Amino acid sequence: VRAPPIALLTDFGLADHYVGVVKAILAQYAPESPAIDLSHLVPPQDIRCGAFLLMAAVEYLPPETVVLAVVDPGVGTDRRALAVQAGGLTFVAPDNGLLSWALLRLARLGRCSLSIADDRLVLGEDCASVVLDQPRFWRPRVSSTFHGRDLFGPVAGHLASGISLRAVGSPNRWLRALPWPEPRPRPDGSLSARVVHVDHFGNLVTSYEGAGAEVERVEVGGQVIQGLSPYFASDQPLIALIGSSGLLEIAMPNGSAAARLGLGVGAEVRIVFRAADP
Amino acid sequence: VRAPPIALLTDFGLADHYVGVVKAILAQYAPESPAIDLSHLVPPQDIRCGAFLLMAAVEYLPPETVVLAVVDPGVGTDRRALAVQAGGLTFVAPDNGLLSWALLRLARLGRCSLSIADDRLVLGEDCASVVLDQPRFWRPRVSSTFHGRDLFGPVAGHLASGISLRAVGSPNRWLRALPWPEPRPRPDGSLSARVVHVDHFGNLVTSYEGAGAEVERVEVGGQVIQGLSPYFASDQPLIALIGSSGLLEIAMPNGSAAARLGLGVGAEVRIVFRAADP
Amino acid sequence: VRAPPIALLTDFGLADHYVGVVKAILAQYAPESPAIDLSHLVPPQDIRCGAFLLMAAVEYLPPETVVLAVVDPGVGTDRRALAVQAGGLTFVAPDNGLLSWALLRLARLGRCSLSIADDRLVLGEDCASVVLDQPRFWRPRVSSTFHGRDLFGPVAGHLASGISLRAVGSPNRWLRALPWPEPRPRPDGSLSARVVHVDHFGNLVTSYEGAGAEVERVEVGGQVIQGLSPYFASDQPLIALIGSSGLLEIAMPNGSAAARLGLGVGAEVRIVFRAADP
Repeated sequence: VRAPPIALLTDFGLADHYVGVVKAILAQYAPESPAIDLSHLVPPQDIRCGAFLLMAAVEYLPPETVVLAVVDPGVGTDRRALAVQAGGLTFVAPDNGLLSWALLRLARLGRCSLSIADDRLVLGEDCASVVLDQPRFWRPRVSSTFHGRDLFGPVAGHLASGISLRAVGSPNRWLRALPWPEPRPRPDGSLSARVVHVDHFGNLVTSYEGAGAEVERVEVGGQVIQGLSPYFASDQPLIALIGSSGLLEIAMPNGSAAARLGLGVGAEVRIVFRAADP
Repeated sequence: VRAPPIALLTDFGLADHYVGVVKAILAQYAPESPAIDLSHLVPPQDIRCGAFLLMAAVEYLPPETVVLAVVDPGVGTDRRALAVQAGGLTFVAPDNGLLSWALLRLARLGRCSLSIADDRLVLGEDCASVVLDQPRFWRPRVSSTFHGRDLFGPVAGHLASGISLRAVGSPNRWLRALPWPEPRPRPDGSLSARVVHVDHFGNLVTSYEGAGAEVERVEVGGQVIQGLSPYFASDQPLIALIGSSGLLEIAMPNGSAAARLGLGVGAEVRIVFRAADP
Repeated sequence: VRAPPIALLTDFGLADHYVGVVKAILAQYAPESPAIDLSHLVPPQDIRCGAFLLMAAVEYLPPETVVLAVVDPGVGTDRRALAVQAGGLTFVAPDNGLLSWALLRLARLGRCSLSIADDRLVLGEDCASVVLDQPRFWRPRVSSTFHGRDLFGPVAGHLASGISLRAVGSPNRWLRALPWPEPRPRPDGSLSARVVHVDHFGNLVTSYEGAGAEVERVEVGGQVIQGLSPYFASDQPLIALIGSSGLLEIAMPNGSAAARLGLGVGAEVRIVFRAADP
């Protein structure tokens, strides 16, 4: 039996020893598990950015992967620490919405069942979860500022090494939900979507998910983009396309759309559809 | 038999999930192959920078390494996708010049044979190459914007896991060449070289390759540097030396020559040689 | 027997091929040893920053880890190259103070014995060290500018693969010490500490180590912070707390204390203690 990979997503940055120390801890508990770094450059405390990256990556993780996700402004407070099994993956994270969009995507892919009630994600029968309350699976001394090292990391390592979910905590059925900025329909039949992520290339990723075949034009930052492009190469100054995450993106060929338009997360993107065939 | 490493070079950046997703894909096809990150901070779409880093690294890769190189502004267009075996290594990359300088260096080291015809690198008998046209080695659904995840990554993983080169594509003998900015001789016997890379330390790496013994002085950005230094430590404000890639570099001890001189890739560096002994 | 991990700390940056090449070398000599990246974003030539990160990480490294630490402004000069075994770990580094604070922390944890004499750290009987002077464990051709690739890397790889310490060099008992900026007592009973590190979150880490129970207030950059906080979440604009390295830190909840105060390494932080109970 091969040891499962451990996928890491944090806001720890790459300049300090923080990520290295977490990996040193993982190497002690799960020495055979390879680490897969999803990102450590989530902006400090930016739960939404972390949630987006987890959503975009989750579909591609190998079965049995343990996902250690720590963007944790509430570290040391009474926010809960959780482990969740869903869709063949195991997640270890603070209960602050960070896992919301990844779990919703797994549900949309039919890999697990979920429901939303008020501000909670309620896990279906095909999921399992615990509140992490078993200190014997933590570091002997737990700081109140670095649970990635002292609590989440050790638990993720134990889970990757074969310890069962129910050993590491008490049963749980729900998580705090982070609302997805669903595009809103406008009176004229168009949609008002939001930029949910700006990537390394300066592409503006929106909350509109779809095949894009019916998109007539996209309006953003005072610019009008006619139709969707199939790929990035173009002689247009600005294009719209369905990106690799299945979401509509605004891109500038060989440049940064974010810099050109001066826009970022939260900006409005209006999507106008072709009139339906009569 | 040990699984070969997979070396990665991309312009995907480290902030997003892109590199992590490619590694997740590799972990599915070649779980035993360790990843060696060469760089993911190639500036977006900067094929020349990627080509330089591959050239500088290629000599040190373990035998059998699979090199997955993706700087791919033409993703989704009809630019070809290639795999190349040369010098004991296997490369997987778009056909846009990205592999040129690494292959030329392998040839110069005597590890493979190549010729240049017009704007093509023609592979010798001791090399093998295919155009990647066998979708059964790709992800089931291939996006038109992320072939690192959907095409190159899966093929690299398959090759690392032991699938043969000829299984993954149709025979090919050539690649698009990226011209190396060979230093040009001047009427006075000096050479005019170009800066081909600015590294993390602000060192200006030039296109002049040589032992340096005959260099009398170097002129760059209005400064004159007498002779070459053996190493970086110096009380001179600016030095020239033969760097770790075998190329002449301009450096500022404990500082950035690029920042001090305000120069970057493409800048001219004039190399004046000692008069030959009579 | 499992191959020991190799922990890496350098100032090589992540943009170039330098770290990748070192890992390629390690993969040749110690293919079974997983790499743990502590940081490669130590500012160029900043030995103190490297020393701090090693100190903060050292306690968490798995037993037998080989630590390859290269921040080496004197590369190519006659500065010594060392390997040191202490506290169950093996270090490979230039002799420029880089290892000082990590070794002192191991000593304070009771894992090895050290003494300080003038500007030297003298190793106790429970430590071992050699000067690296056996070229057969280096690359065949050693550059004078990249010993991480040509000397330290190969030696670290050999040591991780089981070669004994005394094979790779000649006996040595001391290292150059980097002085720790010990907080200085002031006439009024307070302490004057220094900022020794600014982390990714903009937290100002000071040289004051302690439990913090007796701290009445902290004065920094013209601001007065009453008492210590248990964790980062707070509605105060600025807080002080004992951070995850056991050192007093100044932090701005959901922001950067360094940016807010305009302070960095070397800044003074005054710590005022409660009057002792009568």
